[in-house]
Amino acid sequence: MSYFNGISKIQFEGSTSTNPFAFKHYNPEEKIAGKTMEETLRFAVAYWHTFTFEGTDPFGAGSMLRPWDHLTGMDQAKARVEAAFEFFEKLNVPYFCFHDVDIAPEGNTLAETYRNLDEIVAMLKEYIKTSKTKLLWNTANNFTHPRWLHGAATSPNADVFAYAAAKVKKGLEIAKELDAENYVFWGGREGYETLLNTDMKLELDNLGRFFHMAVDYAKEIGFTGQFLIEPKPKEPTKHQYDFDVATGLAFLQKYDLTDHFKFNIEANHATLAGHTFEHELRTARINGMLGSVDANQGDMLLGWDTDEFPTDLYSTTLAMYEILLNGGLGSGGLNFDAKVRRGSFEAEDLFHAHIAGMDSFAIGLKVAQRLIEDQVFEKFIAERYESFSKGIGLDVVEGRTDFHQLEQHAFSLKEIKNTSGRYERLRAILNQYLLEAEVVSVR
Amino acid sequence: MSYFNGISKIQFEGSTSTNPFAFKHYNPEEKIAGKTMEETLRFAVAYWHTFTFEGTDPFGAGSMLRPWDHLTGMDQAKARVEAAFEFFEKLNVPYFCFHDVDIAPEGNTLAETYRNLDEIVAMLKEYIKTSKTKLLWNTANNFTHPRWLHGAATSPNADVFAYAAAKVKKGLEIAKELDAENYVFWGGREGYETLLNTDMKLELDNLGRFFHMAVDYAKEIGFTGQFLIEPKPKEPTKHQYDFDVATGLAFLQKYDLTDHFKFNIEANHATLAGHTFEHELRTARINGMLGSVDANQGDMLLGWDTDEFPTDLYSTTLAMYEILLNGGLGSGGLNFDAKVRRGSFEAEDLFHAHIAGMDSFAIGLKVAQRLIEDQVFEKFIAERYESFSKGIGLDVVEGRTDFHQLEQHAFSLKEIKNTSGRYERLRAILNQYLLEAEVVSVR
Amino acid sequence: MSYFNGISKIQFEGSTSTNPFAFKHYNPEEKIAGKTMEETLRFAVAYWHTFTFEGTDPFGAGSMLRPWDHLTGMDQAKARVEAAFEFFEKLNVPYFCFHDVDIAPEGNTLAETYRNLDEIVAMLKEYIKTSKTKLLWNTANNFTHPRWLHGAATSPNADVFAYAAAKVKKGLEIAKELDAENYVFWGGREGYETLLNTDMKLELDNLGRFFHMAVDYAKEIGFTGQFLIEPKPKEPTKHQYDFDVATGLAFLQKYDLTDHFKFNIEANHATLAGHTFEHELRTARINGMLGSVDANQGDMLLGWDTDEFPTDLYSTTLAMYEILLNGGLGSGGLNFDAKVRRGSFEAEDLFHAHIAGMDSFAIGLKVAQRLIEDQVFEKFIAERYESFSKGIGLDVVEGRTDFHQLEQHAFSLKEIKNTSGRYERLRAILNQYLLEAEVVSVR
Amino acid sequence: MSYFNGISKIQFEGSTSTNPFAFKHYNPEEKIAGKTMEETLRFAVAYWHTFTFEGTDPFGAGSMLRPWDHLTGMDQAKARVEAAFEFFEKLNVPYFCFHDVDIAPEGNTLAETYRNLDEIVAMLKEYIKTSKTKLLWNTANNFTHPRWLHGAATSPNADVFAYAAAKVKKGLEIAKELDAENYVFWGGREGYETLLNTDMKLELDNLGRFFHMAVDYAKEIGFTGQFLIEPKPKEPTKHQYDFDVATGLAFLQKYDLTDHFKFNIEANHATLAGHTFEHELRTARINGMLGSVDANQGDMLLGWDTDEFPTDLYSTTLAMYEILLNGGLGSGGLNFDAKVRRGSFEAEDLFHAHIAGMDSFAIGLKVAQRLIEDQVFEKFIAERYESFSKGIGLDVVEGRTDFHQLEQHAFSLKEIKNTSGRYERLRAILNQYLLEAEVVSVR
Repeated sequence: MSYFNGISKIQFEGSTSTNPFAFKHYNPEEKIAGKTMEETLRFAVAYWHTFTFEGTDPFGAGSMLRPWDHLTGMDQAKARVEAAFEFFEKLNVPYFCFHDVDIAPEGNTLAETYRNLDEIVAMLKEYIKTSKTKLLWNTANNFTHPRWLHGAATSPNADVFAYAAAKVKKGLEIAKELDAENYVFWGGREGYETLLNTDMKLELDNLGRFFHMAVDYAKEIGFTGQFLIEPKPKEPTKHQYDFDVATGLAFLQKYDLTDHFKFNIEANHATLAGHTFEHELRTARINGMLGSVDANQGDMLLGWDTDEFPTDLYSTTLAMYEILLNGGLGSGGLNFDAKVRRGSFEAEDLFHAHIAGMDSFAIGLKVAQRLIEDQVFEKFIAERYESFSKGIGLDVVEGRTDFHQLEQHAFSLKEIKNTSGRYERLRAILNQYLLEAEVVSVR
Repeated sequence: MSYFNGISKIQFEGSTSTNPFAFKHYNPEEKIAGKTMEETLRFAVAYWHTFTFEGTDPFGAGSMLRPWDHLTGMDQAKARVEAAFEFFEKLNVPYFCFHDVDIAPEGNTLAETYRNLDEIVAMLKEYIKTSKTKLLWNTANNFTHPRWLHGAATSPNADVFAYAAAKVKKGLEIAKELDAENYVFWGGREGYETLLNTDMKLELDNLGRFFHMAVDYAKEIGFTGQFLIEPKPKEPTKHQYDFDVATGLAFLQKYDLTDHFKFNIEANHATLAGHTFEHELRTARINGMLGSVDANQGDMLLGWDTDEFPTDLYSTTLAMYEILLNGGLGSGGLNFDAKVRRGSFEAEDLFHAHIAGMDSFAIGLKVAQRLIEDQVFEKFIAERYESFSKGIGLDVVEGRTDFHQLEQHAFSLKEIKNTSGRYERLRAILNQYLLEAEVVSVR
Repeated sequence: MSYFNGISKIQFEGSTSTNPFAFKHYNPEEKIAGKTMEETLRFAVAYWHTFTFEGTDPFGAGSMLRPWDHLTGMDQAKARVEAAFEFFEKLNVPYFCFHDVDIAPEGNTLAETYRNLDEIVAMLKEYIKTSKTKLLWNTANNFTHPRWLHGAATSPNADVFAYAAAKVKKGLEIAKELDAENYVFWGGREGYETLLNTDMKLELDNLGRFFHMAVDYAKEIGFTGQFLIEPKPKEPTKHQYDFDVATGLAFLQKYDLTDHFKFNIEANHATLAGHTFEHELRTARINGMLGSVDANQGDMLLGWDTDEFPTDLYSTTLAMYEILLNGGLGSGGLNFDAKVRRGSFEAEDLFHAHIAGMDSFAIGLKVAQRLIEDQVFEKFIAERYESFSKGIGLDVVEGRTDFHQLEQHAFSLKEIKNTSGRYERLRAILNQYLLEAEVVSVR
Repeated sequence: MSYFNGISKIQFEGSTSTNPFAFKHYNPEEKIAGKTMEETLRFAVAYWHTFTFEGTDPFGAGSMLRPWDHLTGMDQAKARVEAAFEFFEKLNVPYFCFHDVDIAPEGNTLAETYRNLDEIVAMLKEYIKTSKTKLLWNTANNFTHPRWLHGAATSPNADVFAYAAAKVKKGLEIAKELDAENYVFWGGREGYETLLNTDMKLELDNLGRFFHMAVDYAKEIGFTGQFLIEPKPKEPTKHQYDFDVATGLAFLQKYDLTDHFKFNIEANHATLAGHTFEHELRTARINGMLGSVDANQGDMLLGWDTDEFPTDLYSTTLAMYEILLNGGLGSGGLNFDAKVRRGSFEAEDLFHAHIAGMDSFAIGLKVAQRLIEDQVFEKFIAERYESFSKGIGLDVVEGRTDFHQLEQHAFSLKEIKNTSGRYERLRAILNQYLLEAEVVSVR
């Protein structure tokens, strides 16, 4: 039985193909800098956007046409698993990700919810055994149900806090059971609507306590995957505590959690916070905290999380540049936390969208690799900061100077000579490398 | 004598050159769809950003190093003219643009200002005679001097209104004298700081009157260049009357001025207004009002007019797509209303920046032309709207139906079948065309 | 039977009351400038937010607890009508507003939808007969169902266009039947997701045709209520055609529809478009197009339509200022297109929220009236523009001058003397009037 | 001799006065909660906006008319000091703040700059002796001169780093000499224009080193004032390292500087970073890092630092609420880092603006104090979080539980009962307290 009739396994056909269902740039086996594309890019399909998203928006009902629409409850959940693995195989992706509620419906009681999960997890385990596609990460959805409306680990209601703990406990057990490489925390309701009714300090302290208990429990059950925090500044709450990487870092330091967490960075969350995607990646990277990536893009003229499939080649290039300089993503990957537009409601759009995203990151990888190989920006930067590799500059870097000496140095200067930052030239070079991506391939 | 030593005339050297002072994509003589690139792109250098901008920002003093820095007053003004034409020639651009105050310093009296202008205009006229570079448009700067602080043609002070009229009158005479192809109105102070002190209706009525007088005066002196309004939503004033193309259109219709004006559309102004660049071009185009373009780009994470040189190839491609579908820009052109970053303070950055911008629009032109030749989006659109070319749809378009008939039709429908908008697929195709730009050139 | 037990009719108890269910400022019978508050403010309850909104958000399921939750289908629809009129009476509001789908569930066929509507409309008609609460306006929801996913009157699908026509036709009949004072068009899906697949000109032309057919049909059936367009820049679509008042005005002028339409202006839509609420009201007012108001407020740090209940007294004051200068809203009113926050899920929050909004506009009315009575801003403005009431300024206004004369005037000026706009002082005065609102009441 | 003729010392005249040059709400001697308003509010005049700002904007030349306009160089600097103390006295403010370049012109050499500073500092010291107005804080302007165009303590040029050190060294000596209560660091150029040319890690490490050297030097010379970092997300640079309080906190923790720094929080910087003013104050407060305040406001529809005088009473109330709960500002104060609009160019506007700001914060103080006295929000919050004061909630807070116990608790729950957050009701109460501010005064 097939859920996606008429679409066969997506092959790499190169840039000259006009087949809409072919990779033009992503070739999983192609080696770039000693690793296959598949090994470096570590693509993952997001279960929620691909298999459960119905196409609703704040003014619209579900629009998606899916082969499992006629089913409900656990039957639908099982059909989705079957469809998912067909999809993974056809797309040839090595990973997938899910929230608990994506894979199995919540029951009327916590116990029933657990039973539903157990049944589907067993099914997933079977599939994973024989599939190339593994679990990149899972997480608990502690934001959709109305019980979370004031928060989960930051709820003013201790019962809710306990319920959140139970769900994360179960999530960690599932992660362990399915050999997830990471476990993610996205605090969709961990924030506030108004300070007028909020004890922000208690909420943050509780969040710190919650994370410590999660760390302890993972240790207890021997789950060794990486813990990841996914920052987002707002939406659904007015203000979320994990605003951006820097805010997350301040929190992790304060609550002594830096050893246990890295960041899962989403492009669209970066821009909602007023940063570029690459800024967030860089901030995490230079702090040794770049864990994984939610590969999507936002619309810079819209103020909400549009979760588009990534097709902006500047963004994929600069992201891959940071990732390569990070030595890759370790246990992380590029998860398509992206949804087809509401108007792209046909099942084949799911393939178009993933192919578009995978090709865009493949291009990004190629261009970034060439930039690094040619040391394009590195050489420029090395020269630009050269004064810190000798004399007074080196003294600064090595901690051998003070304000007295520096003042003396300042007095000794006849003039101060800066050099151009060459912004425009560097942008042109970036364009050139981008445009040559295909030329290089064609040669 | 040379102002830009060490830089010779910029040549097209193709994509394999590593010379930083060579066009890699812009080849003025290359024919695209029957016209040379130069004829289609009609590039113009903005006098202000290139020859008078000092590199100030709201928190910083001038940083630019320019060969005319040691001069002042009219001596400096003349040196700038010499330098400008050297720059135009080296860059090989067909056009330039200026505000009155860019070319000659304001005097202590209006009469002195006129004399200064006359002297420089005479000099420019001589240069233009023997140069390939002509005047795309000029305008009056009625926003920098403190007299304009409450507006020019919308000032609450009738003396200021009169002064603005005098400056535009002179501007039109200069346009006539120098054979400008257009005359531009940018209402930098035509707006308000707060409605609490503003008679918005009187101000807008006065603006309408002002434009009618300008139209009359141009007719009187036989200036036949195109009048252009340049929309911008805000900055410097809190709210500017020419917010965007649609707002300008509402104004022109209300004051019966549509026959006399088109729009000069700036990319960065579009995004400040909440639109894409191509949206503004499209809006003007389908209303027959696309006149000229200020070719720059903004930073989508910054809320002010950054006026960067255009290097985003998506933006240049989609802009050229609208321009080609418009049948070109007529008497308009692509004016680089763009400034080098404050950190790009060396004279050679001016070349890097213009080359980057010209190459980016050359790529945009090539890609857009191929998209149109291949009817990529047109075919998709034709199919998508096919129902309006027959049956009830055609009745709608041809005005032959009413709500009764339409209701009958609705009742007759078994189901309504929409088709996917294919957003993701179309973005991927756009990428593919962009990436193949060079491949096509290389072949 | 009561849906809102424990809450009796909301009375005016003045500012010293601590009763949470009392008006502190809104006293329907209090006369301000010769009219009762009720006559001037013309409050309306929005059926959708109050009786059908479930508390969903893009990341959350319904949270609202409502007395009709246990019912479904037409039973629920009828219970809502009963609850609505109990609510209207307790709140003592003169108007309500609805979309067709708010009052009756869509059927499986258009015919069934009509039957459902007919049944509820009959019920509403009965209630209206004996209630003080009348229908301010109704409209057709042509945006929620997936059939509208590419637009309604601007759909690429002629069948959808016809279906939209049928629904608006029915809507006009309902408006006629229930004596609605206005009929509203909000183009939630009239816009585009991407220009790559959009024939913007055809879509706009079709929208113009659609409106003309609506005008014709209203005439045919003798519906004489005011037609209103409600501008919104974005959300749900990426770019909506009725971006703001100015854009709407450009459209209405182009398609020769200005005589038949006014604007229904929503505060939150104004700010999403980059304008203040009062800017949009002013723009409509000075063009004779201020029809009605959707009284809510946005969160200026969030980029989506938050539709909060209006509590910002600056905003309500400046809105009422424009409305009073407009001579009131005519057949329009202040419709609370506002929803309680998702965390305010108890039924009593509906009362708190409406009381908060009504009190806020009552304060706004009082303050605005005193500002106008005292001619606070008018006197300042009259003085500021005084130069246009005499001499050359008057010549400008009366069309008796030209650029020659104005230039002569400019030459004749020794110096140009502007005067301060007194921004800070005017803001302080506004504060003072606001703070004295209660003092005045108390005296 | 007087610089501000016609304006005498500003007196408190209460709310019934119509004198534009009178405080209506700020009464320095009035006691609120045991402290005089002057003691709590600790207002400071910002030297730069008030005495050196010329009214330029990115499109406009200086517009301000000032009594010292006819002077230049050190003569002008001295006149400004005289004018400043006349202004302070008339306004009756206890503090002022300055950057080094505000008080004395930079010389051609560092030595000359020092001499200029020494001369003016000596003059200031004399004035301070006999004036009530003291120095709240000073700082070094390391952002205006072109030498800083790539940064100061984060410059890629070691000479610039040294020069920055010299200027801060001098600044600390001045702080010591003038008994400044704090010393501020605002990193206007500490950020980047593009990551393509930036070694972000080295720059941040250097910034950490710079701060440690500053701490050491302050200790060495016995300056005991509080060190303050002033966060700002962007402008002038594209991205500034001290984005917001949380980012600053992450930095200070990483570089082990938390014991030596607090934050100087500016309202307009908060909103540019996507936060409310009160969010930033709260974040600092609950981390024990609330040092001082730059009291201004932004325009939420404009994307740059407008630095308006604070007149939004919601903002001043919620700010004072945080400040009162912080037990006041300690050595900090409310510095009017605010400039009159360019159109408010008359000297008397400086008084209007400061009076408006001081009255607005006086109202804020009164309202906040009543809110706290009445425990309006505190009681609501205490009840809301009550579950964390007993049972499982208390176990969480006291660290006595784990995921096992919490899961057991979750299993034991029949249902989870949340209560409404009462957003709308709380906003209405806030309004009521605001409106009663004057009533209370009048009584």
